[in-house]
Amino acid sequence: MSTRRPTIGVFDSGFGGLTVLKALLELVRDADYLYFGDTARLPYGSKSVETVGRYAVEAAHYLEAHGAQMLVIACNTATALALDRITAAAHVPVVGVVEPGAEAAASATKNKKVVVIGTEATVSSHAYRKALEARGLNAREKACPLLVPLVEEGWVDHAVTEQVAGIYLGEAFGDGFHDADVLVLGCTHYPLLKPLLHRVAPASVTIVDSAESTAGAVATHLQELLPPPSTQQQENRTHPRLKFFATDSVEKFRRLGHRFLGHSTDDVQHVDLKE
Amino acid sequence: MSTRRPTIGVFDSGFGGLTVLKALLELVRDADYLYFGDTARLPYGSKSVETVGRYAVEAAHYLEAHGAQMLVIACNTATALALDRITAAAHVPVVGVVEPGAEAAASATKNKKVVVIGTEATVSSHAYRKALEARGLNAREKACPLLVPLVEEGWVDHAVTEQVAGIYLGEAFGDGFHDADVLVLGCTHYPLLKPLLHRVAPASVTIVDSAESTAGAVATHLQELLPPPSTQQQENRTHPRLKFFATDSVEKFRRLGHRFLGHSTDDVQHVDLKE
Repeated sequence: MSTRRPTIGVFDSGFGGLTVLKALLELVRDADYLYFGDTARLPYGSKSVETVGRYAVEAAHYLEAHGAQMLVIACNTATALALDRITAAAHVPVVGVVEPGAEAAASATKNKKVVVIGTEATVSSHAYRKALEARGLNAREKACPLLVPLVEEGWVDHAVTEQVAGIYLGEAFGDGFHDADVLVLGCTHYPLLKPLLHRVAPASVTIVDSAESTAGAVATHLQELLPPPSTQQQENRTHPRLKFFATDSVEKFRRLGHRFLGHSTDDVQHVDLKE
Repeated sequence: MSTRRPTIGVFDSGFGGLTVLKALLELVRDADYLYFGDTARLPYGSKSVETVGRYAVEAAHYLEAHGAQMLVIACNTATALALDRITAAAHVPVVGVVEPGAEAAASATKNKKVVVIGTEATVSSHAYRKALEARGLNAREKACPLLVPLVEEGWVDHAVTEQVAGIYLGEAFGDGFHDADVLVLGCTHYPLLKPLLHRVAPASVTIVDSAESTAGAVATHLQELLPPPSTQQQENRTHPRLKFFATDSVEKFRRLGHRFLGHSTDDVQHVDLKE
């Protein structure tokens, strides 16, 4: 990476990855961002390894072709099922969300028991369990397929969502995991539920947001790759430029995107991956 | 259609269309069936007209190429957004789910007020409202995006689902539609919720299941197209042959498919539409 101001490509199946972009915009301001949401083919969370891998590699190639010098796979499902495949197919550094999340969990847990919630596909892959066990931790993974639709319905603080989360977390923290002290949000939609999950989870639990952990990992990675900015460069810093690509309707992307990012997502371009 | 025993192609974005196939197997037994579930790209219900149209035409072509002599678009979203486009692209008769559902609603209502529930995309298209207004009825359409994920989670008789359905139907039957007397299930997942919806909807409401209405329309259509069977042919009737195609994991199709169809969905073949 030769330029002082890198272009970072952020990829997700849809909108959830915008929580990672939001964390990046707070932590890594001296960069420009391309965000790719594969909204025509979302959700990935219920799909197979083969399908998710193929879709993710297409998106990675698209971002590289449009100037991304680093790729952030801001989707737990794509990371869990296809990080190796994406890394092999890419020509630039690739950062996923699972390893930073596992690392943050390892730092936060005292009794080495961690609960991870995510989509059906992320949980079936056991990517988190492997990453946590490699750090000497006991892990319980729990698929929570209704949480993404509840977030997309906008019910982020709704009694129904609290009830559903209560059922899922009740099962996750049952049977030998009553004393787990960390809850990893293994899906980039879940940061929008953080206040609600704090209420529902056992009081002693620390919530690890893999969006924030990933932004931290990207910042560290860039420090290793790039020379430190000069005083002149620090003074000349400008706001990050944001450019969005979506495979489904751009109107819907603008509407839902704002909810996840908290910023405008107006500069969005429709992409047809078959062309 | 020259053959006495037609091959009928049934298409849906995923599993919901199996409720239509189930109704067809009860009503039209003298036929063979090809079922195509575009499971790699589901759900259609949150996607745009352009994307749904493109996907549906690809699936229709696939079914025709594999011998379908009639196409049943067993997906409310694909029918609502793309029936004209599919009909124009196909070389065989095409039956959708919206017109049969509207016709059944018109027969069932006494006070000419009908509520339709469906996906976000089906409701935004106003296909049902247009079909019902063309029959002189007042229609209220209500998007219920959480019902499909709740069905796919298997919570078809769960307290949470009852609460969610209560919220949706409370809004749908409010504001001038208190006295609506028909509820159209404008999504092929919803027949699995019929007992629960009967409990939640106002007591006087008749539920119209567009899966059943569509099977009736197909039976009528076939009677018009085909000569009546001879006594010999009636005696020689065999069970319908079923063949399934899915764009995502065949294992998942077998597992979830059984829940919707109530029959085995073992003979399923993976299809990659890009090849």
